[in-house]
Amino acid sequence: MVRALRARLPRESIVYFGDTARVPYGTKSAETITRFALQDAEFLAARGVKLVVVACHSASSVALPELVRRVGVPVVGVIDPGARALVAATRSRRVAVIGTRATIASGAYERAIRAADPEVEIVAKPTPLLVPLAEEGWQDGEVAELVVRRYLAGLADEGVDALLLGCTHFPLLADAIGRVLGPGVKLVDSSEETAARAATLLDEQGLLDRAGTPRHRCYLSDLTPSFEQVGARFLGAPLGEVMRASVAGG
Amino acid sequence: MVRALRARLPRESIVYFGDTARVPYGTKSAETITRFALQDAEFLAARGVKLVVVACHSASSVALPELVRRVGVPVVGVIDPGARALVAATRSRRVAVIGTRATIASGAYERAIRAADPEVEIVAKPTPLLVPLAEEGWQDGEVAELVVRRYLAGLADEGVDALLLGCTHFPLLADAIGRVLGPGVKLVDSSEETAARAATLLDEQGLLDRAGTPRHRCYLSDLTPSFEQVGARFLGAPLGEVMRASVAGG
Repeated sequence: MVRALRARLPRESIVYFGDTARVPYGTKSAETITRFALQDAEFLAARGVKLVVVACHSASSVALPELVRRVGVPVVGVIDPGARALVAATRSRRVAVIGTRATIASGAYERAIRAADPEVEIVAKPTPLLVPLAEEGWQDGEVAELVVRRYLAGLADEGVDALLLGCTHFPLLADAIGRVLGPGVKLVDSSEETAARAATLLDEQGLLDRAGTPRHRCYLSDLTPSFEQVGARFLGAPLGEVMRASVAGG
Repeated sequence: MVRALRARLPRESIVYFGDTARVPYGTKSAETITRFALQDAEFLAARGVKLVVVACHSASSVALPELVRRVGVPVVGVIDPGARALVAATRSRRVAVIGTRATIASGAYERAIRAADPEVEIVAKPTPLLVPLAEEGWQDGEVAELVVRRYLAGLADEGVDALLLGCTHFPLLADAIGRVLGPGVKLVDSSEETAARAATLLDEQGLLDRAGTPRHRCYLSDLTPSFEQVGARFLGAPLGEVMRASVAGG
């Protein structure tokens, strides 16, 4: 997501907050995810950001209405942009969404996809083990393929031709997923659509920076032993300066 | 651990606290694990317990000295009891320990094993994916065996004849681990030794309850969608009454 935001908004400074002390969110209850997401967004708002992008699909799925209501700046989630990208990608009008337990249980993607096209058939499937697989750096190879096959074998036979990667970690597993599902299933990542939505929103509100020199900042609630490695894997580049930040209780 | 404590101390009431809002601990820094473990132990101390058992190996590995110093009641961890059980189990005097990244990086098991027997050779290996595998209920079958093989193949060839299951989740994977390592490697679980240590400590201090009718309580910091299922898998019995509890920020 940060990569897509930097590409789409090259003049904007990005303040990143990763709640490494309390992740993963996708195994937790909607109530706890919402409480944590509010604390996280308030942390960012207190740093003077003009827009909050909720990159986490679990938080976007269950906490977005509450965030929009309570955070004092515009908030963009990944669900609606992802649903639109998915609907645009399908020809068969049978699509699949994979995500954490929290994301899939919320039904948020189904609602957003039906809002974009009421006729599309949807298979929604929790694939929780893909998160720690990506964290462990085992996104390729035999284990990844076996886990993906156990979750997703049969999807292509059901006529699905587009699958939404409904978790920040899943694009790292795109190769393994592609090998299991074959070339007939298009994999959809919501980052670019979400970055585009953020850009449109800033532009509409006259908040777009067209001349600034960006200064990015990265805050983490825990400097875990693996944060540099995992962060660089996501960003495709070194993280730069990283600061530890306390949110409530963190 | 709760099962072993109930068996060893049938008259004692057990107050259980599971920090489901912030687990897993084993991927986090020693600093954050210590902060969380202190909050957890203080929560229990405030409920009037006479002894705290730290069942989490990651917390025992990095936070025990701080807990002993700052919690007002005796604190028992799993590291020393486990190390003694491991040393008692080996004939070849080559042993292995598996655990989370935090547990293995701390070196706590190596220190405890060397204290019990300075001559034992130790292989210590982080096996982080075994935690989510057990949470997902995939402790048997092809995926579990492949992951275990990727981490542990070759251990038996190195002359190791005893392996310590250094994480609360790993006893659930004992069958898969046993299939990979073969009958020549004894799997050691620290629960019974730890329960015995807790009983001795209570007895020494004249705190042992010999006639009470136990009333167990279970507190969780998040009522996650899977807590009943996962909890029952660990306990081998239904959880009984469960209450949501707030620790700092939780």
